[in-house]
Amino acid sequence: MSELKKIIKKRGKYISPSFSLAYDNPIHIVKGRGQYLYDYKGNKYLDAVNNISHVGHCHPKVVEAANKQNKLLNTNTRYLHESIIDYAQNISAMLPENLEVCFFTNSGSESNDLALRIAHQYNDSFESIVIEGAYHGHTQALIDVSPYKFNGKGGTGAKDFVHVIPMPDKFKGEHINKNLKFEKYYIDKVKHLIANIQNRGKKLALFIVEPILGCGGQVTLPNIFLKESFKAVKEAGGLCIVDEVQIGFGRLGSHFWGFEMSNVEPDIITLGKSIGNGHPLSVTITRKDIADFFNNGMEYFNSFGGNPVSCAVGQAVLDVIKDEDLQSNAFEVGSYLFQGLLNLKNKYEIIGDVRGRGLFLGVELIKESNHMISASKEAKKAVNLMRDKNILLSTDGPDNNVIKIKPPLVFNRKNADYLLDSFDNVLSEMTIKVK
Amino acid sequence: MSELKKIIKKRGKYISPSFSLAYDNPIHIVKGRGQYLYDYKGNKYLDAVNNISHVGHCHPKVVEAANKQNKLLNTNTRYLHESIIDYAQNISAMLPENLEVCFFTNSGSESNDLALRIAHQYNDSFESIVIEGAYHGHTQALIDVSPYKFNGKGGTGAKDFVHVIPMPDKFKGEHINKNLKFEKYYIDKVKHLIANIQNRGKKLALFIVEPILGCGGQVTLPNIFLKESFKAVKEAGGLCIVDEVQIGFGRLGSHFWGFEMSNVEPDIITLGKSIGNGHPLSVTITRKDIADFFNNGMEYFNSFGGNPVSCAVGQAVLDVIKDEDLQSNAFEVGSYLFQGLLNLKNKYEIIGDVRGRGLFLGVELIKESNHMISASKEAKKAVNLMRDKNILLSTDGPDNNVIKIKPPLVFNRKNADYLLDSFDNVLSEMTIKVK
Repeated sequence: MSELKKIIKKRGKYISPSFSLAYDNPIHIVKGRGQYLYDYKGNKYLDAVNNISHVGHCHPKVVEAANKQNKLLNTNTRYLHESIIDYAQNISAMLPENLEVCFFTNSGSESNDLALRIAHQYNDSFESIVIEGAYHGHTQALIDVSPYKFNGKGGTGAKDFVHVIPMPDKFKGEHINKNLKFEKYYIDKVKHLIANIQNRGKKLALFIVEPILGCGGQVTLPNIFLKESFKAVKEAGGLCIVDEVQIGFGRLGSHFWGFEMSNVEPDIITLGKSIGNGHPLSVTITRKDIADFFNNGMEYFNSFGGNPVSCAVGQAVLDVIKDEDLQSNAFEVGSYLFQGLLNLKNKYEIIGDVRGRGLFLGVELIKESNHMISASKEAKKAVNLMRDKNILLSTDGPDNNVIKIKPPLVFNRKNADYLLDSFDNVLSEMTIKVK
Repeated sequence: MSELKKIIKKRGKYISPSFSLAYDNPIHIVKGRGQYLYDYKGNKYLDAVNNISHVGHCHPKVVEAANKQNKLLNTNTRYLHESIIDYAQNISAMLPENLEVCFFTNSGSESNDLALRIAHQYNDSFESIVIEGAYHGHTQALIDVSPYKFNGKGGTGAKDFVHVIPMPDKFKGEHINKNLKFEKYYIDKVKHLIANIQNRGKKLALFIVEPILGCGGQVTLPNIFLKESFKAVKEAGGLCIVDEVQIGFGRLGSHFWGFEMSNVEPDIITLGKSIGNGHPLSVTITRKDIADFFNNGMEYFNSFGGNPVSCAVGQAVLDVIKDEDLQSNAFEVGSYLFQGLLNLKNKYEIIGDVRGRGLFLGVELIKESNHMISASKEAKKAVNLMRDKNILLSTDGPDNNVIKIKPPLVFNRKNADYLLDSFDNVLSEMTIKVK
């Protein structure tokens, strides 16, 4: 048995099979640097998918911040410590003025779960509006508001308090078949759902949304949709929760946060993944009045959340983003990559849509015969062939036919060229029809 | 305004008020070493309460393991990496043979939430049996099974699928007033609840339990209660989830895990807190057949869970526990401390009960006039006076009248003597009546 097969076999015994491995031919990674990962044989891979390693794998300033604080103190938030307060202030300074109260947690899931709890309690209701294809995390309460999971494999459908808006997807959304106006169709859906909830004598608790859906297939929600749906939700007294776990911290290039694209005012935002460059850290941020209302006598204690090490790491990541001007890089390289992907779209029939913003892009593959049919097998094959060319990507979306590009923000033009050339070659190798 | 008051004021602006501060006179901690914490003025505190810092604050081997791996690679579980597999094997080797499949997560809450999901899906049911006063974590689903929260301040009571067993507390349990036999009374409650669930045409999903209740007030569940209730639950098809988050990893001295005290066979166990000595790490471990059943097509992805850094830290903690024989120390120092506390119980009327195991002890304070009335104010005062003598403790239990002792396992006899002498002095200062 090969070394790799032995490891896979042993993994199969001790690690849950629900933890999947990427690629038909899994990779045994042992080292990371910047936008590169290295396997045990020393092969170098261009990492175009790990948005968690936001400022680059093993960034020395982040590693050093963790080590310095690990040596000094790592304890819980029941003692005073300045770094958590300074860090909270620094995060808050980058947000609209009224988003200033922080709850520190250990994962995007913990932050989204807490956001739900805050909204449930605020409105004494569970009634929730969510977007088709959305994923917000792995806890029980989050599976319940994640159509990606409850309508996906192994899911058991929507609970009665969960109301799903069809994906406002300009390319393949259900407005097309119905021949209705794009944004209006989905805005009306939101208004209709709210009316339904109210007609049943219930109150809307919350609307949770990613401004660009990650697992949903890198679908950017139209500005007017977000604007109008926030307006309707707020009129009904619901809280608007913006999940920035995948897209926050400058990844979009044009904006530091996703919600800024449509200039809406979230009641709660949640940050995770990139916030600690891989260190388990996340935060839920809300208004003072909402945080005060939540403080009804029930303590919120989080064993690890907001410990001095996590805060030192979070601060270092924030510093590096600024010092290295990574948001500008995301804008420049992202725009360049986007244009290159558009050129490939003009060449190959199979590329139905190129979308996203900055270094959070999606390439939707569709059947050459019918643009409304997802080319899922082809997307999987392309990603596996790219992996064989040492470029790491993945697929997602309800049909797994959207190739996701979300590299560490140190990704450069040369990396973009290599990705584009390789993708062109892969599509050729697959004998994909040229227009 | 004093420096401390300035920090508290700034904290009040940026950190949620639901995050509480310990002590009437909060401490500004800046350094940790072994069983000691140091404030910004250089004052040294004996830490008798932070069970998360299991092998001692800032243990150099744990710090070094984190730094070494942070420099090398920190990525997710979709790639092969040996350290997660080896670590899972090493954890599994310390458990009953059939508990071998690991799900890595970032907090006890994530692990308990996942344990619930596994049990819900296994039995296609939410019906849950829980112990009065129990706390299992902060997610929505865990608040629902934590009477400590849903029956505590700000709570909204039990949901219809949650069934609460009165606390099997030998000292003050409700069997006393009813003049019924201790263990049998609570075992019958379990059987009665199961029958009720079945009579309603429902299936029992799970029984979740800490062998020694932490937040519940350091109450050790009687062996025969656990034995018989596990038997009844398993006969009804329910899964037995043992929450070892607070007590696992040798803290009890006599046993490495809490469930070993009563020789029961958990279907799922959850580990957290101490597992990473403060690093956000946790794990849910179950049988292969249960893990396979859970693997129904829905992937479980955890952005940070099981990353190489977390696993290196977890392995280092495991190594230190063995190398420094900390379980034996917990047994020896714990037994010594327990005897010393019993001596104080014999001296002071206010000490109603001394309980727990190893370095996980509780001292219940009761009114001198009536042993069934909790001396909550006195417990709070004692803990604040101990803090002024530079010893860190806390109170818990439904009435907050149980003083909790759960120090880093490097706590020594001299520390125990200092704690005992100081506690004696504090009770004298409070002019507590001597027997």
